[in-house]
Amino acid sequence: MSVTTKATIASFGGKLLKLSHAAKSTKCEMNFNLYLPPQAATQKVPVLIYLSGLTCTADNCSEKGFFQHGASKKGIAVLYPDTSPRGLEVPGENDAWDFGTGAGFYVNATKAPYDNGYNMYSYVTEELPQTVFAAFSQLDSSRVSITGHSMGGHGALTLFLRNPGKYKSVSAFAPISNPINCPWGQKAFSGYLGDDQQKWKEHDATELIKQWKGPLDVLIDVGTGDNFYKQGQLLPENLEKAAKEAGVEGVKVRYQPDYDHSYFTMATFSDDHVEHAAKYLLQ
Amino acid sequence: MSVTTKATIASFGGKLLKLSHAAKSTKCEMNFNLYLPPQAATQKVPVLIYLSGLTCTADNCSEKGFFQHGASKKGIAVLYPDTSPRGLEVPGENDAWDFGTGAGFYVNATKAPYDNGYNMYSYVTEELPQTVFAAFSQLDSSRVSITGHSMGGHGALTLFLRNPGKYKSVSAFAPISNPINCPWGQKAFSGYLGDDQQKWKEHDATELIKQWKGPLDVLIDVGTGDNFYKQGQLLPENLEKAAKEAGVEGVKVRYQPDYDHSYFTMATFSDDHVEHAAKYLLQ
Repeated sequence: MSVTTKATIASFGGKLLKLSHAAKSTKCEMNFNLYLPPQAATQKVPVLIYLSGLTCTADNCSEKGFFQHGASKKGIAVLYPDTSPRGLEVPGENDAWDFGTGAGFYVNATKAPYDNGYNMYSYVTEELPQTVFAAFSQLDSSRVSITGHSMGGHGALTLFLRNPGKYKSVSAFAPISNPINCPWGQKAFSGYLGDDQQKWKEHDATELIKQWKGPLDVLIDVGTGDNFYKQGQLLPENLEKAAKEAGVEGVKVRYQPDYDHSYFTMATFSDDHVEHAAKYLLQ
Repeated sequence: MSVTTKATIASFGGKLLKLSHAAKSTKCEMNFNLYLPPQAATQKVPVLIYLSGLTCTADNCSEKGFFQHGASKKGIAVLYPDTSPRGLEVPGENDAWDFGTGAGFYVNATKAPYDNGYNMYSYVTEELPQTVFAAFSQLDSSRVSITGHSMGGHGALTLFLRNPGKYKSVSAFAPISNPINCPWGQKAFSGYLGDDQQKWKEHDATELIKQWKGPLDVLIDVGTGDNFYKQGQLLPENLEKAAKEAGVEGVKVRYQPDYDHSYFTMATFSDDHVEHAAKYLLQ
């Protein structure tokens, strides 16, 4: 459970820590970043988990997402996990940018050879938080929210919907909202989970929301200039439609004119997503 | 004077334009970025020029500096020039990271072979603004301020001090404040200007401030965790001392505890520098 500190960087009055640990669930050393806001020096602070998209590491959003700006004002820590195991040398894991390394899709792989370490679901929901809370006593393990971008938006929505009560709130940027019906999701789920599409549905936000009971308050931003949205990889309308048909209220998708799939979009709206999380983390 | 638009990116309610033009002063196609705040859609807006540091292009600060955040609130455009000519194939220009390509030092080279195109002083003070104001009528050419980081901080201070009245205000992050007395500056000035150190002084903020007449209000942020500050490449104390001895008031250096030389520092304090410029640009 020990954590190695690789760098400590002053940011918005707090500290961005570049960390790593030997992870059992993913069978490799995993890098991650943790932003400690200034308030963490004197009190326990809640945690917002940010799940990154395809090809990204913990660093991209730490550098370009601007979450530290809002988190430093609200007194919320931000935990940035990596997007897959790295260096396992699973055959084919480096052959594509949208599968394997950098593309763990926040599931536990059940299909060989990826079942040997591609367990980002267990890693993000259990091992990483347990490791972080054991190492950083200034974090309040009872107050955790989750957000993410693209593949990480899929991760945030599915982890939230699969674990009622585990996270205080959820939001997403350009989430892959219905992976069983888009090329990215179909490729990932067939490769990690095999051909049984019933298993795929257990990791599809549009399918999961049909089973949701109780209140919901999901903030989603999607840019109308996002090429992956235009290509049908994100399908937020399917999530909205499924929620409506299931009588689940509180799925708010904001279609932001002209915004693209990049971190420029995240930087623009990250304050809103921190604010959304703060409503529930700081009650 | 024509400008080519390579990308238009939505950012903080405005647009970040990635542009290029055939520059006469530097004898090559030059890339640059321009952020147009939302206010530029309906009114003329002033311009803050941001000069980048060693190895950087116009993109680094556009992605990681968060100037767009403050500029969008204030209604100020941000112009991000490149840091040198590129592709001139001057012998040796790519041999080092701190000289030649990406390291133009905002001077006009007088020493061969760099006198053939390394004219970043003329490019930034004359050709680029003339090109931009001709292409974008929503920019107010009578209201321009300047700032920058490291080598770009040197550029901002020296361009401001050499051209009284040309810029409404100046600020800098971790500026190379006394280049004639630091390794980076000595290497650059000897390579671009030759051995006559009297010529070097014409591009040294600490020397130039001794000649300044009238009021001055310079905001400078330097991180105490900045390795280049610790190595004596920045020497802001020399600038402060020279100003004090010359009876020039208004040089405010904020030594920010633990902050380093990176864009994390810029992101943290860029709002302050936009605010500083806004005091003079929005009068």
